[in-house]
Amino acid sequence: MNERLFSFAGGNSGEWAVLQQTTLVGPPMENVTHVAVRPAGVNVDASKWVLNGASSNDRYVERSEKDALLAVQQGLGRSATHLAVLIPIRKNAAWWGMTQDERRAIFEAKSRHIAIGMQYLPAISRKLHHCRDLSESEPFDFLTWFEFAPEHEPDFNDMLRELRASPEWTYVDRELDIRLRRS
Amino acid sequence: MNERLFSFAGGNSGEWAVLQQTTLVGPPMENVTHVAVRPAGVNVDASKWVLNGASSNDRYVERSEKDALLAVQQGLGRSATHLAVLIPIRKNAAWWGMTQDERRAIFEAKSRHIAIGMQYLPAISRKLHHCRDLSESEPFDFLTWFEFAPEHEPDFNDMLRELRASPEWTYVDRELDIRLRRS
Repeated sequence: MNERLFSFAGGNSGEWAVLQQTTLVGPPMENVTHVAVRPAGVNVDASKWVLNGASSNDRYVERSEKDALLAVQQGLGRSATHLAVLIPIRKNAAWWGMTQDERRAIFEAKSRHIAIGMQYLPAISRKLHHCRDLSESEPFDFLTWFEFAPEHEPDFNDMLRELRASPEWTYVDRELDIRLRRS
Repeated sequence: MNERLFSFAGGNSGEWAVLQQTTLVGPPMENVTHVAVRPAGVNVDASKWVLNGASSNDRYVERSEKDALLAVQQGLGRSATHLAVLIPIRKNAAWWGMTQDERRAIFEAKSRHIAIGMQYLPAISRKLHHCRDLSESEPFDFLTWFEFAPEHEPDFNDMLRELRASPEWTYVDRELDIRLRRS
């Protein structure tokens, strides 16, 4: 069975060593030295925090965009991609109160979220996990996991700068940026 | 706090008495005499099954449709609405593999899901609960809860007939229909 639900456990053990843990907006999380990524339900001893998320169906991508993405994107776990970044994000009530067409207009027409990300393929691999509906009060709405080779970190930073300057990001009310290296 | 996550517990106690429990497609569930609706996490003794679902953001509705719906729809719990129907539904992999524009085209352009439902407002109240992403293997993707006065049951049946005959329903691979009366 294709597992969809994953846990990101921060603590003092795990296959990813934390290089830097930054809080961009909203409350911080306890600093940790390692992050372990596991199928949900697999216990990680002595973790200081655990974030859960489920991969799910596409929410905004349209067929022409999906085909373009599929033609170039690469999966996780490539041997050269020693760096990873975990970006937990929460969006505010104004975002979630909008209808699908309103959210899509901000997401792509105004913010070019897909188009910006496309510029950085295939160097940067990405996997989105949804958490908003997992329980009554999840700390985040999304956990995005990125992997890339060290020489592409400047490109990755450029991508984040573009996205964070977009109208979509005015709806983000909590965001952390956790830089990791395979340990 | 506005609760979003609810449990529907089938057993021999609960505020809703089962009038009829029908399996339309896919495996049946154990027959029960009552259903209790509770905020998730509230235990219901001796239930034979529990279905969980979370109310969430709109997935397909656009602003003009939302405004039209808001202008006429009524909430749950009206004194005259003695009947309720719980319809758990699962859609197949082909549905979930489609992009947003493909799903929306089937949902509304081809199946008129919103337009059909609109014809039965305000008589029929409706609340949609999402479950697909709650865990690794939920038995259903959606739980829809309807309430209406007994004299509107024929209208409700007409609505279901229209929806079940639509192209969208060719993607439904499990569906039950549980008719209830306030006990």
